[in-house]
Amino acid sequence: MTAPAPALDFTHDPRPHSWVSSANSSSEFPLQNLPFGVVAGVTGEPHGVVRIGDAALDLRRLAASGLLTDEAQEAAEAAAQGTLNTLFALGSGPRIALRRALHSLLVEGAPNRDTVAGLLTPLSEVDVLLPAQIGDYTDFYVGIHHARNIGALLRPDEPLLPNYKWVPIGYHGRASSVRVSGSPITRPHGQLKNGAQAAPVLAPTRRLDFELELGVWIGPENQLGAPVPLDDAESHVAGYCLLNDWSARDVQAWEYQPLGPFLAKSFGTTVSPWVITPEALAPFRIPVDRPVDDPAPLPYLDSSRHRSSGGLDIDLQALIITAQMRRHGEPPHVISRSSSRHMYWSVAQMLTHHTSNGCDLRPGDLLGSGTLSGPTAGSEGSLMELSHGGKVPITLPNGETRTFLEDGDEIVLTASAHRPGAATIGFGECVAAVRPAITYP
Amino acid sequence: MTAPAPALDFTHDPRPHSWVSSANSSSEFPLQNLPFGVVAGVTGEPHGVVRIGDAALDLRRLAASGLLTDEAQEAAEAAAQGTLNTLFALGSGPRIALRRALHSLLVEGAPNRDTVAGLLTPLSEVDVLLPAQIGDYTDFYVGIHHARNIGALLRPDEPLLPNYKWVPIGYHGRASSVRVSGSPITRPHGQLKNGAQAAPVLAPTRRLDFELELGVWIGPENQLGAPVPLDDAESHVAGYCLLNDWSARDVQAWEYQPLGPFLAKSFGTTVSPWVITPEALAPFRIPVDRPVDDPAPLPYLDSSRHRSSGGLDIDLQALIITAQMRRHGEPPHVISRSSSRHMYWSVAQMLTHHTSNGCDLRPGDLLGSGTLSGPTAGSEGSLMELSHGGKVPITLPNGETRTFLEDGDEIVLTASAHRPGAATIGFGECVAAVRPAITYP
Repeated sequence: MTAPAPALDFTHDPRPHSWVSSANSSSEFPLQNLPFGVVAGVTGEPHGVVRIGDAALDLRRLAASGLLTDEAQEAAEAAAQGTLNTLFALGSGPRIALRRALHSLLVEGAPNRDTVAGLLTPLSEVDVLLPAQIGDYTDFYVGIHHARNIGALLRPDEPLLPNYKWVPIGYHGRASSVRVSGSPITRPHGQLKNGAQAAPVLAPTRRLDFELELGVWIGPENQLGAPVPLDDAESHVAGYCLLNDWSARDVQAWEYQPLGPFLAKSFGTTVSPWVITPEALAPFRIPVDRPVDDPAPLPYLDSSRHRSSGGLDIDLQALIITAQMRRHGEPPHVISRSSSRHMYWSVAQMLTHHTSNGCDLRPGDLLGSGTLSGPTAGSEGSLMELSHGGKVPITLPNGETRTFLEDGDEIVLTASAHRPGAATIGFGECVAAVRPAITYP
Repeated sequence: MTAPAPALDFTHDPRPHSWVSSANSSSEFPLQNLPFGVVAGVTGEPHGVVRIGDAALDLRRLAASGLLTDEAQEAAEAAAQGTLNTLFALGSGPRIALRRALHSLLVEGAPNRDTVAGLLTPLSEVDVLLPAQIGDYTDFYVGIHHARNIGALLRPDEPLLPNYKWVPIGYHGRASSVRVSGSPITRPHGQLKNGAQAAPVLAPTRRLDFELELGVWIGPENQLGAPVPLDDAESHVAGYCLLNDWSARDVQAWEYQPLGPFLAKSFGTTVSPWVITPEALAPFRIPVDRPVDDPAPLPYLDSSRHRSSGGLDIDLQALIITAQMRRHGEPPHVISRSSSRHMYWSVAQMLTHHTSNGCDLRPGDLLGSGTLSGPTAGSEGSLMELSHGGKVPITLPNGETRTFLEDGDEIVLTASAHRPGAATIGFGECVAAVRPAITYP
C-alpha cells in the first residue's frame, strides 16, 4: 500500500486524519499541526520530537529508522539533539521536507505503521523541556491596545508616545530566566517605593502580573551587519509559541527610568513547549490591518506582499486558577480573550526592524510580541489593565477578587487558530503557578 | 633546582620577574597579571591561553604536559576548550591554583623552563578571540558623572533621576553582537527624526559615539531564585575587561521611550580580549567612596567589608585615531582620562542587585559598568559628553574636529592599575575602527 502523496499545502486541507486516534476530532494537535519540541523520556536523554495528538514521535529514533531520505533525514538528524537550535538553523527547506515525510508516515493508511507506532511515546510519560537554547531574548511592544492602556495610566493626555506608529518598540529581555511551561514562578523581591515614602524598601513585589504574548523562535541567522529585508523576514522564523512575560509592576515603576524594564521582568519568563511551524499557521495569514488615518510604515517596513498576508489570526486566552479554585476542583477561569490580530506591527516587521541596524539574530533566539490586549473590556492581556492599574479588582466565579496575582495562583495561556474548512491548530498551554517569595538571604 | 614558593598574595609583590623577558620592565602583562584568553593559533583550533608579556601560553598543551596537579590541572583542562566558560564555572579555587602554578613555572629561575618555553607562542602569530560564549549581557549605568552629564542635556532641572542613588540602574544588552577588540564596527542605519520633521527617515546614524566602560565576566552561576548576598558577590566574578558600548545617539533619542535603548546599541559592542583576574587586581581594591550626604545603600547592597574594599582603582583612557592621523603616521590621541573610582555602585553591588529578584547569572555572562566619566573636563567617557551634546566640537592635535565619530575613526580604550610598590597591571587594548554604512538592502 502506498501512502497518499501529501499536497504541497496539506495544512489547508482539514480532511486527512491520522491513524494516531488522539490526533483526530477535537485535538489541537492534528496531522496538520505537527509542532516540534524537546522531551526527556524514560532514558532521561533530551531529544527532539514531533507532537501528534497526545503522543511524541521520537525524531532521534526516526532518524535512525531508515524511513527518511535527503532533506527530511537531515532535519531529523538535526532534531535528534537535546535542543532544536540545529534544526532551526536549517531553515524552511529541510523543515518542510520533514513535515511532508511525517505527514506521509502518520496519515491514515500510511505504510510502516507498526514501525512508526513504535516511535511514539504518550506525552504523559515524558518531561517536556525548553525546545532551544536561547541566545538572546527580545521583547517587543506591538500590542497597541496594551500600549494605549498602560500609557493612559501613566500619561492620560498622551497614552501613545509619538514614536509608536513609526517604530516597532522593543527591548532586550533576559534569556537565562526563560523557563518552559510548568516551571513555577517565585514571587520576586525588588526595590519598592511609593511617592509617600522617603526611601525604597527591598520586599516581595505586591503587584505581580502576567502578560499574554506570542513568542517567535528564530531560525537561520543573519550575519552581523546584514539587515533582513521585509519579504525575507519569514524565512528567518522557525516557529511560534506562547509567552508569559511575568512582571512586577511596583518594581517596574521605580526602576524603569531612564533605561527601561530590568529586574521587574528578569526573574522569569514562561514559554509553551511546542514550536508551531509557519507551515501549520499558513491558513491563518491575514492582511495587515492598519487604520487608514495612520502613517504608512517607512519603506523598509512595508511591501505589497506583507500588506496582503503579513498578519496572523490566532485566538489567545488567559485563564486563572487560584489555590482555592484548585482545592474545590473548579476549572480555570478565562480572564482575557484576545487575538494576534491586535499586533500593530507584524512578526516580519519586528524581525526586519530588529536587524535594520545590522544586529544579528541567531537560531534559537526568542522574540516576544509584547502584551496582546484587545480593544474591548475582557480582552486585556494583563492584570494591570484588567484591574485599571490595581484600582478595580476583577471578580472570579467563586467570589474571589484579584487586582494582582496572589501566591498559589496559576496563569494558563492558550492559543488556537480556526478557519472554516481548515483544521484547528492549537499551541498547547503556557502555564505557571506563583510560589511565595523566599526569605531574603 | 626548586621553584620559589609563590606567596599567597604574590600579586602584591612587584619584585619577582619572569624568565619571559617581554613580561618585565614596562610590560602591562608581567608575572603578576597572567590574564586568561582564547586564541586560534597556526592550527586554527581555538583554545585557552594565559598571557605573559607578549606571548600566549597554551593551556591545552600545558594540561597535557604533566606539569600540573589537582585543581591547577582541573583549571587548565577546563581552559583547554575553545571558550573559557568552563574555567569560569569552576570559580576561584581552581583559578587561583592554576595562577600559582603558572607563577611557579614562569618566575625567574623556575624549573622546566625549556618545556614551558615550548608552550609559548608570540601573540603576533595568533588570532585573539572572544574569551567566552556570552549568555546574557547586561549594561549598567553606575558612572554617576556620566548619568549627570547626560541627564543635564535632557533635563537641566533634574539631571539625576530620583532612583539613581538607590538603584544600580541597568538594562539588558544584546549578547549576539558583542565582538572582540579589532573587529570593525559598521555605522548602523536607524530611524532618525528631529523635532522639525513630520516623519522619521531610515538613514545611517549621524551621531555615532563610543562609551568607555569596564566589563565584568561572570564566573560560577547562581540558581534561578537564589539571590547572591553582597559579600559573596565577588566569588561570582571571573574577571574584568574593557567594554566599548557603541551608541547611535540620534537613533537612541527617537526610539528609547518607553522601554529604553535597543537598536541604538545592539549593532555592536567591543570587549578587550584578556580576562584580568580578581587576583591580579587585588592590590587595587579601595574603599567605596560615597558622599556623606548621600543615602546609605539599602541593607542588601551594604556591608562593612564592602565599604572597606568594594571599590577598584583602575585608570581608564579613551584615544582616537582618525583616517588622516593614520595616513600621516600620527599616534592615537587621548580624548578622555578617567577611572573606575567613578563608579557610584561597585561591581559587587551591580551583581547582587542583578540577582536580588532571583535572576540567574551564568558563567560567561557579561556585565558592563556603564560609561565611566570623571567629574572634570577631559574625563568624559563619550563624545556626547565631550562635545556637549554635539554642540561644541573637540579639536584634535592635527586640527581636525569631532562632535561624533566619522568613518575611518578608530577608538582605543585602555586601562591599567598602578600603586607604589605593586607591579602595573594592564588590560590591553579594546579597539575598533568605524566602517562606512552599508547600502541598505
